[in-house]
Amino acid sequence: MVKELKKQVLLANLALPEQGLVKYTWGNVSARDPETGLVVIKPSGVPYEDMTEDDMVVLDMDGQVVQGSLRPSSDAPTHLALYQAFPQIGGIVHTHSPEATAWAQAGMDIPLYGTTHADHFADAIPCARPLTAEEINGEYEKNTGLVMIETIKARDIDVMHVPAMLCASHGCFTWGKDAMDAVMNAGVLEEVARMARLTRLINPQVKPAADALRDKHFYRKHGANAYYGQAKK
Amino acid sequence: MVKELKKQVLLANLALPEQGLVKYTWGNVSARDPETGLVVIKPSGVPYEDMTEDDMVVLDMDGQVVQGSLRPSSDAPTHLALYQAFPQIGGIVHTHSPEATAWAQAGMDIPLYGTTHADHFADAIPCARPLTAEEINGEYEKNTGLVMIETIKARDIDVMHVPAMLCASHGCFTWGKDAMDAVMNAGVLEEVARMARLTRLINPQVKPAADALRDKHFYRKHGANAYYGQAKK
Amino acid sequence: MVKELKKQVLLANLALPEQGLVKYTWGNVSARDPETGLVVIKPSGVPYEDMTEDDMVVLDMDGQVVQGSLRPSSDAPTHLALYQAFPQIGGIVHTHSPEATAWAQAGMDIPLYGTTHADHFADAIPCARPLTAEEINGEYEKNTGLVMIETIKARDIDVMHVPAMLCASHGCFTWGKDAMDAVMNAGVLEEVARMARLTRLINPQVKPAADALRDKHFYRKHGANAYYGQAKK
Amino acid sequence: MVKELKKQVLLANLALPEQGLVKYTWGNVSARDPETGLVVIKPSGVPYEDMTEDDMVVLDMDGQVVQGSLRPSSDAPTHLALYQAFPQIGGIVHTHSPEATAWAQAGMDIPLYGTTHADHFADAIPCARPLTAEEINGEYEKNTGLVMIETIKARDIDVMHVPAMLCASHGCFTWGKDAMDAVMNAGVLEEVARMARLTRLINPQVKPAADALRDKHFYRKHGANAYYGQAKK
Repeated sequence: MVKELKKQVLLANLALPEQGLVKYTWGNVSARDPETGLVVIKPSGVPYEDMTEDDMVVLDMDGQVVQGSLRPSSDAPTHLALYQAFPQIGGIVHTHSPEATAWAQAGMDIPLYGTTHADHFADAIPCARPLTAEEINGEYEKNTGLVMIETIKARDIDVMHVPAMLCASHGCFTWGKDAMDAVMNAGVLEEVARMARLTRLINPQVKPAADALRDKHFYRKHGANAYYGQAKK
Repeated sequence: MVKELKKQVLLANLALPEQGLVKYTWGNVSARDPETGLVVIKPSGVPYEDMTEDDMVVLDMDGQVVQGSLRPSSDAPTHLALYQAFPQIGGIVHTHSPEATAWAQAGMDIPLYGTTHADHFADAIPCARPLTAEEINGEYEKNTGLVMIETIKARDIDVMHVPAMLCASHGCFTWGKDAMDAVMNAGVLEEVARMARLTRLINPQVKPAADALRDKHFYRKHGANAYYGQAKK
Repeated sequence: MVKELKKQVLLANLALPEQGLVKYTWGNVSARDPETGLVVIKPSGVPYEDMTEDDMVVLDMDGQVVQGSLRPSSDAPTHLALYQAFPQIGGIVHTHSPEATAWAQAGMDIPLYGTTHADHFADAIPCARPLTAEEINGEYEKNTGLVMIETIKARDIDVMHVPAMLCASHGCFTWGKDAMDAVMNAGVLEEVARMARLTRLINPQVKPAADALRDKHFYRKHGANAYYGQAKK
Repeated sequence: MVKELKKQVLLANLALPEQGLVKYTWGNVSARDPETGLVVIKPSGVPYEDMTEDDMVVLDMDGQVVQGSLRPSSDAPTHLALYQAFPQIGGIVHTHSPEATAWAQAGMDIPLYGTTHADHFADAIPCARPLTAEEINGEYEKNTGLVMIETIKARDIDVMHVPAMLCASHGCFTWGKDAMDAVMNAGVLEEVARMARLTRLINPQVKPAADALRDKHFYRKHGANAYYGQAKK
């Protein structure tokens, strides 16, 4: 059952510590099988160096374990909420990578200060509002997802054009067409977060890049008129 | 005599430079044998690459060397003071890891800005007051421990819920149920200290995370209602 | 055809990730053949680990592909504009290295704060002005080069004495007598950018180094009276 | 001739890039032979990876090459000035390590903020004044040494208790009883410089550590009453 996807999810999870995006067990990756709609996710609190393909947990969209003997990541309900809201999403990553998390703890969007950002994300990286005490004491992990969805809708964000979000006082989520695409977005987010911090240290009055530059770089790499890279796959 | 514990203490000491928490000989780990109450500690000023299991020094609770031919760490009286005050502590780590030490040198608590912190520490990391000249010129290392104990009692801290402290103008101590648990806490403290610094650079007006979020994350991983990770050991 | 140069350009491209100057595919190196005037450049969007010598693209000065089956770097028109304007340039590097890019995003020149800078660059590293919307929506990559050339001429810069420039809200270009010389300048630029940021954090009122010190260090290493290093080649 | 010392100086030079203290050829180490008074120093501008024991240059105290076919480091007159002024010095290191250089470029002493500093240096790390244009245009490298000596004398510094100095707008020098001792001091200086920068970012109003703490830590490791480490050599 979804054997190939379990392998992909394992490799994507292992990529997080390799790329310096997580320490200890502080992160998780999931992916959705396009045919069955089943979601494969990392088990909770298992050290990366011990994880095997068979440790991956298979969930249905109600969060029931369909396969696997371990508990799923405690953040599974957040992943499921995002998959339910956005059928385009095929993979999701959660990390506490330090530069992105610093912006999340600061409770601030990461402004689009340059082309490194615009090559990958079409606009500022939004920071979702803090959860209320009720939301925290209720279905916390599910509500974490709902508040991100609220932010996406309230700001009219194209979820595949800005595939990243900060959660106030918490960490970040990224997504993509599959698990490795979401991991790539997590890596770019961390680098963009770092550059944005350095930029503001040098020039506290800095303004975001011009809209024309933002659009030029984003659409140079995305959409029908993209001309970066080799022939489309 | 406490052969297994000497091995654990050696490995825990070697983990410090491996994890980037100490340079040169700037750190030490000890552990207490639950049966005999004897404490095993790193020798003073020996390079990590040359240390062997037999170099570990065994002390009784009065600080007398019970086994070993080398001098114990000069910080041994600090470790002993903590073990005496808190029977729950099984292992102690001292480092000058740079991010935590920067907060110690700044003389400030590390505020709880997010869930990375709350997943491991139930509240801000306290900074103990500077020692007086009398305390420094007297039994300095013992007094370093006594001032930490004073801080824990004055603030009514649960020593196993906030297993870390900064010493003003000095460095940090962490502890845990055993030596490797204390090392883990030293690693998390350094990462939390770094994130807190970055957070304040981005938003100097940042406020600590909400109490509800703090408690949710801490008790998700600790205590009777924890649901993070796999079945309890 | 320019076989040796293709090898040099491949090695120079591979040096960028090895030296920590680029992540993913965010950078490119080209070189000009002094005899034929042909330019060899990295292909667009190909991962560094997969690139071979034969993937390098050979262009004439009009940007026509003379050899190679892949698309050239989308930044090729920027490189060509610089080669056309300055016959002394033999190699060009473009990166988004984080410290230099932070200054570019801040829209500020990197002041010459010390001898590390002056040993390699005879003056501050200029930041070219932002492109207008017309320039962006027109021949963007070519205009990126033209705005750098405008800056060099407007400030009367000796292009081989200050072989680096920042592009506002974007990244940086460096050049040199050949591809590896341009890579060296990219590495020095990143280090100088970092030191300049740290310097201003410590002392926001810092002034640039004295002109006499700047000239002493630059001409100790460059020109007829240089006395650093071994016998001239 | 001084064969063993040449080997020591080679190894000490190679330790600089290994410890992340120099990039490219930006650093040099020398040592003085206690019997003959001859000084062995790195050749100028030779890549570290190509250097051999026989490339080391032997100088007399007047700067004449006594052995070796390469030019000595262009900073040799600075080293010689220090050796002449202070007979206790057996080895000297010059680097542009980034954290120490940032303080030098900022033109500021590194305050003694904590015990990491006090364990190795008995007081703040002084920043020597900028050279005048006359000093720069005259015997620049020798004058660099003379200005350090002026600083040491004007402040009544014990040169073996504070074996480090910053040169305004330039970099840093450290020294010690031999070459590897000077390298150790260069490594500690860089770490202390980093911690001091981080400390001020967290608390811009921070004050230096108490004198009693400074003295306690310095004399715990140095002098007749030292009790850190194992039996004295």
